[in-house]
Amino acid sequence: MAEISDLGEFGLIDRITKDFPLKNTSSLLGVGDDAAIMNYGDKDVLVTTDLLLEGIHFDLRYVPLKHLGYKSAIVNFSDIYAMGGTPRQITVSLGVSSRFSVEHIDTLYEGIRAACDLYGVDLVGGDTSASVTGLVISITCLGECEKGKEIRRDGAKPTDLICVSGDLGAAYMGLQLLERENRVSAQAGKEFQPDFAGKEYILERQLKPEARRDIVRALSEEGIHPTSMMDVSDGLSSELLHICRNSKVGCRVYEDRIPVDYQTALMAEELNMNLITAAMNGGEDYELLFTVPLTDHDKVENVKGVKIIGYVTQPDLGCAMITRDGQEFPLKAQGWNAFTEK
Amino acid sequence: MAEISDLGEFGLIDRITKDFPLKNTSSLLGVGDDAAIMNYGDKDVLVTTDLLLEGIHFDLRYVPLKHLGYKSAIVNFSDIYAMGGTPRQITVSLGVSSRFSVEHIDTLYEGIRAACDLYGVDLVGGDTSASVTGLVISITCLGECEKGKEIRRDGAKPTDLICVSGDLGAAYMGLQLLERENRVSAQAGKEFQPDFAGKEYILERQLKPEARRDIVRALSEEGIHPTSMMDVSDGLSSELLHICRNSKVGCRVYEDRIPVDYQTALMAEELNMNLITAAMNGGEDYELLFTVPLTDHDKVENVKGVKIIGYVTQPDLGCAMITRDGQEFPLKAQGWNAFTEK
Repeated sequence: MAEISDLGEFGLIDRITKDFPLKNTSSLLGVGDDAAIMNYGDKDVLVTTDLLLEGIHFDLRYVPLKHLGYKSAIVNFSDIYAMGGTPRQITVSLGVSSRFSVEHIDTLYEGIRAACDLYGVDLVGGDTSASVTGLVISITCLGECEKGKEIRRDGAKPTDLICVSGDLGAAYMGLQLLERENRVSAQAGKEFQPDFAGKEYILERQLKPEARRDIVRALSEEGIHPTSMMDVSDGLSSELLHICRNSKVGCRVYEDRIPVDYQTALMAEELNMNLITAAMNGGEDYELLFTVPLTDHDKVENVKGVKIIGYVTQPDLGCAMITRDGQEFPLKAQGWNAFTEK
Repeated sequence: MAEISDLGEFGLIDRITKDFPLKNTSSLLGVGDDAAIMNYGDKDVLVTTDLLLEGIHFDLRYVPLKHLGYKSAIVNFSDIYAMGGTPRQITVSLGVSSRFSVEHIDTLYEGIRAACDLYGVDLVGGDTSASVTGLVISITCLGECEKGKEIRRDGAKPTDLICVSGDLGAAYMGLQLLERENRVSAQAGKEFQPDFAGKEYILERQLKPEARRDIVRALSEEGIHPTSMMDVSDGLSSELLHICRNSKVGCRVYEDRIPVDYQTALMAEELNMNLITAAMNGGEDYELLFTVPLTDHDKVENVKGVKIIGYVTQPDLGCAMITRDGQEFPLKAQGWNAFTEK
């Protein structure tokens, strides 16, 4: 294993960046100067950033470094797609403690590169440093969008349909599974082999999520321009409340319309957890939550992988879920909160 | 003192961002959606990022939080100016451990705001999180530049003059002073009062550096377009070697031309350190190092606060300093390296 200190900061940067040729015409100059240079012509520029800290956002006892790199990039791409944009460039800053070797960093960047290759994004900058504590990953993503065509959180109107892509709660259940196996493994010692058979989907949702570029494209092909959109990172309840607060509206969502995968449901049962709570508050699904005008009902029904889960109301009606037996429960943001859970 | 966990992530974001109204026409949407939105018209977009970690880049035993916030922003602005650009937006990501109160975060942001106000920069996004370890600050800065007018590192030509703004080594000497007083204070206990009289300049250079916007403007007013430029963050030797390597040239700098302040020299003597080593390798000065064509000699002599320290040579002559007694010493990058010093 090679020591990072033998390479030094600039050696490490050279090693990392040689496998990242620039792909986008908007990327004029990448790594290697005081700043990267881009030109977007007349497009709008989007910027989003995510900070991932060891012990808070990930646990290296059960998250492989390659997956971590992949996911760190994806969560940023997802934010750009959730604005209706296209991610184009990222900067990656790393704080690395001395227990990491050069090979560890290579593996982390393999994941970042895989995500960048799949989504057509350029690595154009960053900062690398030692860390006296855990691993720190800070990624900023730049993207582009046709001038004024961004889909914000504040455009939902009463009678709009509320839609969500894919299914919810799987990433959360994957995390529960990983944490359980990690606990059992710690007790059982070396001979323990975790059994993930039949649970591959929820594991992949937790470890290797995707950004829903396909949904953004499908909506565009159907001529649907959502009135508001967000990605589901903190949990559906929390994101719905954001849209409603920003758009100054209320909402109703139907419990029996919340899309849930079979493996998510099985895992919830196995762990004796409430399935709908997991789906509503689990977070990290990186699905798209959006609203469309009622007149787009038939069009949106044509889009594969999208489900209508409710509708937007006047603000005075508040935000509520309607259960299977017709009762109304106010939505609460029990989503992931980095300041209260730990 | 208010607990951050009582506010929660979104409460904290609201509290932080209410004092950051957008000032730039390029900032279309700031904090509060999946991504911020900007439009730069036909300008090029610059991006740079810095990661600052407690215990590596700063020590809260002697760095006040307000100064830390100010400096965290400034080091990014400096990178944009060093490209010949103008900083316009920043995103600020924070990882905060539980020993920080809401008031601590307010103080940190006071410093960030002061820097943003002075340099006309908008806060447009970020990410806030708990940290199980120390304070983590990750700032990304976007800037603009006339299309193709960026000043890179790779344009220096043989016979070009090498210039530097301000003076060097002061920030490093300020750090030495702070570290010494901190050691003495730890031994002496409560009654100890550090004596910083007559050392205000080197302290300010360490704790509250400025980005040399004034120099970029002055060069532009004189009609000088540097052939290469960088800011001095890792030390003059290290930055000179970057420019020479990227431009495929050599250089000669004169020991007796290196600008050093009186307080820097006094402190070096007091600490029995080599002054020129400090000036060449100290780092964190955030002065501008640049090259201009020989024909600009008279123009550059007109620019206040800029000194010609040497000249660019053919690559085969290598990079060297010429001492007062006419000897040549090869330049070495002994600059600050986060991976080897700690």
